[in-house]
Amino acid sequence: MSDHHVVIVGGGFGGLCAARAFRAPTTRVTVVDRRNHHLFQPLLYQVATGGLSPANIATPLRSLLKGRAATRVRLGEVTGVDLEHRRVLLVDGELEYDSLIVAAGAGQSYFGHPEWAELAPGLKSLDDATRIRRNVLLAFERAELESDPERTRSLLTFAVVGAGPTGVELAGALAEISRRTLAGEFRHIDPAAATILLIEGAERVLPSFPEVLSRKAARDLEQLGVTVRTGWIVEHMEPTSIVIRGSDGERQTVACDNVLWAAGVEASPLGKALTEGSSAELDRIGRVVVEPDCSLAGRPEVFVVGDLANYGHGLERPLPGLAAVAMQQGRYVARLIEGRLQNKISPPGFKYLDKGNMATIGRKKAVAEISGLRFSGLLAWLTWLFVHLMYLAEFQNRVLVLVQWGWNYVTRNRSARLITDSKKDRIPAQGGDP
Amino acid sequence: MSDHHVVIVGGGFGGLCAARAFRAPTTRVTVVDRRNHHLFQPLLYQVATGGLSPANIATPLRSLLKGRAATRVRLGEVTGVDLEHRRVLLVDGELEYDSLIVAAGAGQSYFGHPEWAELAPGLKSLDDATRIRRNVLLAFERAELESDPERTRSLLTFAVVGAGPTGVELAGALAEISRRTLAGEFRHIDPAAATILLIEGAERVLPSFPEVLSRKAARDLEQLGVTVRTGWIVEHMEPTSIVIRGSDGERQTVACDNVLWAAGVEASPLGKALTEGSSAELDRIGRVVVEPDCSLAGRPEVFVVGDLANYGHGLERPLPGLAAVAMQQGRYVARLIEGRLQNKISPPGFKYLDKGNMATIGRKKAVAEISGLRFSGLLAWLTWLFVHLMYLAEFQNRVLVLVQWGWNYVTRNRSARLITDSKKDRIPAQGGDP
Repeated sequence: MSDHHVVIVGGGFGGLCAARAFRAPTTRVTVVDRRNHHLFQPLLYQVATGGLSPANIATPLRSLLKGRAATRVRLGEVTGVDLEHRRVLLVDGELEYDSLIVAAGAGQSYFGHPEWAELAPGLKSLDDATRIRRNVLLAFERAELESDPERTRSLLTFAVVGAGPTGVELAGALAEISRRTLAGEFRHIDPAAATILLIEGAERVLPSFPEVLSRKAARDLEQLGVTVRTGWIVEHMEPTSIVIRGSDGERQTVACDNVLWAAGVEASPLGKALTEGSSAELDRIGRVVVEPDCSLAGRPEVFVVGDLANYGHGLERPLPGLAAVAMQQGRYVARLIEGRLQNKISPPGFKYLDKGNMATIGRKKAVAEISGLRFSGLLAWLTWLFVHLMYLAEFQNRVLVLVQWGWNYVTRNRSARLITDSKKDRIPAQGGDP
Repeated sequence: MSDHHVVIVGGGFGGLCAARAFRAPTTRVTVVDRRNHHLFQPLLYQVATGGLSPANIATPLRSLLKGRAATRVRLGEVTGVDLEHRRVLLVDGELEYDSLIVAAGAGQSYFGHPEWAELAPGLKSLDDATRIRRNVLLAFERAELESDPERTRSLLTFAVVGAGPTGVELAGALAEISRRTLAGEFRHIDPAAATILLIEGAERVLPSFPEVLSRKAARDLEQLGVTVRTGWIVEHMEPTSIVIRGSDGERQTVACDNVLWAAGVEASPLGKALTEGSSAELDRIGRVVVEPDCSLAGRPEVFVVGDLANYGHGLERPLPGLAAVAMQQGRYVARLIEGRLQNKISPPGFKYLDKGNMATIGRKKAVAEISGLRFSGLLAWLTWLFVHLMYLAEFQNRVLVLVQWGWNYVTRNRSARLITDSKKDRIPAQGGDP
């Protein structure tokens, strides 16, 4: 076994791809994550809306890295990095490294309102997803028992903040749940009367997509029953209402019991620790500005990849926080490290191969831009389906997801509509909040 | 719509079958449950051991009762029954009834040691199952990080208390996990070195089965790597050890971090409320002794079915707490009520049609007794599989479970091995307990 020890922080797309890209079977690799599973985040909204089960989109890291005898998985929470002495600090120990790949990702940003986290859950982990699933389903259950029509309306109002791909997907799925899935299941309320607001500060939905696709997506969303409010931001939040402000300064108060947050991301706090011991800088959202080879300025043995990295070399603006970017960076860095170990010439700087961008809106509705081609509707939806199943090829459960999706498609069902969590699965006394 | 209102407390096997057995589309039925889903309890151990996802074995009650316009689902927690005024009391309201079916089931009994509930989770709900799944997986993760060999051994010791079908199934699945599923996934520990103890107070495993099958099951368990300790009871429990006592009075202390409870059941506390307002009696484990037509003595409009009922008419001993009993009683009572409404002659007392008894031990290993025929091994296992899939026909997701099982069988995989729950998914500092 090699003496060189590579530590990878984070088992997301970047970290996992890096770990799997080491070819020499003797390279000692340790993957540290506080969770025991790799999560296929792009499908998290399907767990939040009862279409898939957590196990459909998450796989134990150990089983993904099982065949690699020199690779080990360490469950643990990283608290910092001692760049000087080449040590990763954990809550319950530390790890010495020769090369370090930090792929710690990003969390939700509430734009200076951390107190909103309690009122408006974001969608970053399986626990977030099952929490949102519980809240959404309980809102319909509470509305069924409510006698005050104003409270009923508020319980049946869902505000999704942020109209990037996640927000669009969430809003579309909520519209399908209320219009289709729950049809005929209630006796006092009509679930289809639910209001689904999609609130976006920019002037159009999917601002990172070409305008024509944004228009198409907005039309599809409205058709599904989503009320699209572009040019509005959330200014204030209470448990049963939000205040939104339009770009013209107009303010509105919306009675609304359910706010879902898909607006901003903020890089892992580990970024700060890395810049404190190096000459690298942080950008506005906490990402580490990296060198052309994804390394940390002045620390050639330390690399940052994925959502935590700000990579802008030769580009108009930094690479976006996409799975594809993280995966390519992870693989690139693993090969660079192996090249060094074999005394090969280092490869040129990282180059992102843009495979396109897509977002799904609902059954048979999606938008996609691939190699400059823009398309929407059924074809885009099928492409989305195909690409996601191909991505899932990294996992073992692609077949199962395919079957589950086929089943959902044929039956229009969402069988994972479960309210779990012993402490919260009871309807509280009326007026109470869980 | 009929003026007659039937309230059913509990959406388990008894309650759900009763609700679905009402034939007249106009009979007003309300099903109350504190959970939004019907749970296929016999497969709960597969969720606890990562073989199936919660959604595979649970289905929203609303979707199961969707087609019945006069049937409604009320999420809520029942606190008591006012038999005099025919009202079901809820935390957040009450329901008037003309006929009442109580199918509130049973919970875990710790034989006078309620404090053990924290140390030794039972297996009654989806939350119990995901809690056990988390604990079991975290035990292996902690052992991987542990340097003290005694602590490692304790972390890798799993004691299953009670060798009824659930205990046997749990112990068998734990053996398969440690010997097969986790093989090759750890670097410091050998998961196959884990000790799985199956502790049973009676002199044989599966005491409710014929002796020959108990012997066969014990042999199969030992072959899988389970240490079977019959004639032993748990006397004392600490977070990292248990004291067991043999039938000859011998005491042993076993270092053991993981205790799973499958020993006793105790009927719902609602039983007590029912006997206080009627002349019915409670049995030793809190079940209501019912009349030959499953009604409450002196209250012909109130019925008790399933695990909460003690039905002993014309039998040597009361009917066991099996899904089949609850289902048949639920259907019987629904027909009896409908017969009364149509002024038909009441049917004779309830008769249980014994469809047999079976328990699975592991892959291709099971025991079964059907119509006096006793068999084991592959045939029993296939029968178990077939019968459970047929039972699941009551649900919509039979196909998906079949596919998941086929997949697990071919790949020997347990893809639902996820440690979730944000507050507990981190490895605590060593020595700490979550």
